[in-house]
Amino acid sequence: MKTKLTFAAALLIISCTHVNKEETAYVDPLPSWNDKESKSSIINFIKETTNPENQNFIPVPDRIAVFDNDGTLWSEKPVYFQLLFAIDRVKELADQHPEWEKEQPFKAVLENDMDELKSYGVEGLLKIVMATHTGLTTEEFEDIVKKWLSTVKHPRFNRPLTDLVYQPMLELLSYLQMNDFKVFIVSGGGIEFMRPWVEEIYNIPRNQVVGSSVKTEFVFIEDRPVIKRLPEIDFIDDKEGKPIGIHKHIGRKPVFCAGNSDGDLPMMQWTASGEGKRFMLYIHHTDSVREWAYDRDSSVGRLEKGLEEATAKGWVIADMEQDWKVVYPFEKE
Amino acid sequence: MKTKLTFAAALLIISCTHVNKEETAYVDPLPSWNDKESKSSIINFIKETTNPENQNFIPVPDRIAVFDNDGTLWSEKPVYFQLLFAIDRVKELADQHPEWEKEQPFKAVLENDMDELKSYGVEGLLKIVMATHTGLTTEEFEDIVKKWLSTVKHPRFNRPLTDLVYQPMLELLSYLQMNDFKVFIVSGGGIEFMRPWVEEIYNIPRNQVVGSSVKTEFVFIEDRPVIKRLPEIDFIDDKEGKPIGIHKHIGRKPVFCAGNSDGDLPMMQWTASGEGKRFMLYIHHTDSVREWAYDRDSSVGRLEKGLEEATAKGWVIADMEQDWKVVYPFEKE
Repeated sequence: MKTKLTFAAALLIISCTHVNKEETAYVDPLPSWNDKESKSSIINFIKETTNPENQNFIPVPDRIAVFDNDGTLWSEKPVYFQLLFAIDRVKELADQHPEWEKEQPFKAVLENDMDELKSYGVEGLLKIVMATHTGLTTEEFEDIVKKWLSTVKHPRFNRPLTDLVYQPMLELLSYLQMNDFKVFIVSGGGIEFMRPWVEEIYNIPRNQVVGSSVKTEFVFIEDRPVIKRLPEIDFIDDKEGKPIGIHKHIGRKPVFCAGNSDGDLPMMQWTASGEGKRFMLYIHHTDSVREWAYDRDSSVGRLEKGLEEATAKGWVIADMEQDWKVVYPFEKE
Repeated sequence: MKTKLTFAAALLIISCTHVNKEETAYVDPLPSWNDKESKSSIINFIKETTNPENQNFIPVPDRIAVFDNDGTLWSEKPVYFQLLFAIDRVKELADQHPEWEKEQPFKAVLENDMDELKSYGVEGLLKIVMATHTGLTTEEFEDIVKKWLSTVKHPRFNRPLTDLVYQPMLELLSYLQMNDFKVFIVSGGGIEFMRPWVEEIYNIPRNQVVGSSVKTEFVFIEDRPVIKRLPEIDFIDDKEGKPIGIHKHIGRKPVFCAGNSDGDLPMMQWTASGEGKRFMLYIHHTDSVREWAYDRDSSVGRLEKGLEEATAKGWVIADMEQDWKVVYPFEKE
């Protein structure tokens, strides 16, 4: 699928080099989007902001686009995929930690008691992450993530997790990049959990990933320098952390922002506060058949305030059921 | 000067598109470097690592180059330029802080007593930075930096500080970029002190700057969201902090590293520890006439251990006096 997109991009570039844009055959940049308002809004935005004659033109260095990951670029149900990883890590390390049989939230994980696990909230999750994601070198951690991703299957679809990316969003990423937008992921997930696979799956360079992180230290093991992951939070890239993470890593206010939950609202507000044309896109999970339908009442990817503010301010809300011809790339197989 | 480089780059690209590389007229990518070993080492490295037939070929995503800033891309004498900025800030804010007349290190600044100021070391410097670089929004801070840079002159050369960039290094940055290396600045200086001018001066995007930072918060002033700079250190990007900053922002081990002081040694070691061909470049300040001559005994940009390790391991040491035809762009005027 990725190959096809790239080929289409190449064709478009080649044709644009030699003849006037108006004369080339029309290539739909968002073929998996239905011809509704969300799609036309996106296309109009790109056309206006990349046309130097248009009053809404945005110079290339300012074309910064930020995308949340979980629930925006790939699915986040039944739980964030990184939590599945953390659970598997607990089980793998349990032999070395007999105390976990009695200690929560580890006990809940080992007993597969998800309701109990959820009751420990974010704090419980952080405890698991600290215990299972640290004490390793960055290289070791990356290898573990890659190996895990290559073997684990999604409980509902019985496919690799990286198959559960959204085809319409892959097209959107590619469409923005073709138009000289620099695309960043800005996710509450771990920056080092994402980096090993974002280049292959999203065609986004590693240095264009903003995420949560633990502190690290630079030390020598024998004569070899390594960076070791410490059991201490460095940065939580969620809610108000998202605009802060954007500023930290990008240093420029985005002009395009996509998300799906209340955790994305501050970065939407930050994007919207810039001068000139801006695009705020909320993905609304409305498709209980092909994906999942949830918003206000979901513990994962809860969307309430964001939906209100998007409606009040006229931001674009993509309705997954209505706006997307396909959800996952494998539907086209 | 920048325009000329870009034009040369364009010419090279155009010619390479249409005819075989071997057949084009030779364009010297490093015209301000004397034809000595440093220059030929750089050229050989680029040729080998970008040639897919060569055993030392490096794929494009791995072509990460990191450059220290102070003393590597521009001068750092008589003191780091950001210290000049901090001193001017103290003087500007002194009216609002009558207590500074008696409180060190502010007293030393107000009395222009540089020796006294130096005696307070890094801690004194941080105290000044915290008092003068924070409490502002990121936008306000950027405006202040830009305004200051547009008016201040270097005490020795009586020219804007941005004139004191090294012509040979500008050529090196451009040469790397033309060959699909992604170039980052990795500096002990403030990330927000550098971002306002690196794009224009070095042609390096803002998101490719790694530096020291203060913590920030995302708040609303009336209805407008802002990011406010807090008087608390977030990250010191120096010494062991440099490889950590590289990992944090880039997420990939560099293959090319340039620096000039012992503070750059850990990122040199980090770069050198990768598999395959690597390039470590130390700039040695040996030119007391055109620039400054200093190494072991300098408080600013001290180079002792780095020189030893570079010599022992055969890293390239560029001798400013011997290797550089010109130091500053204005020498060619």
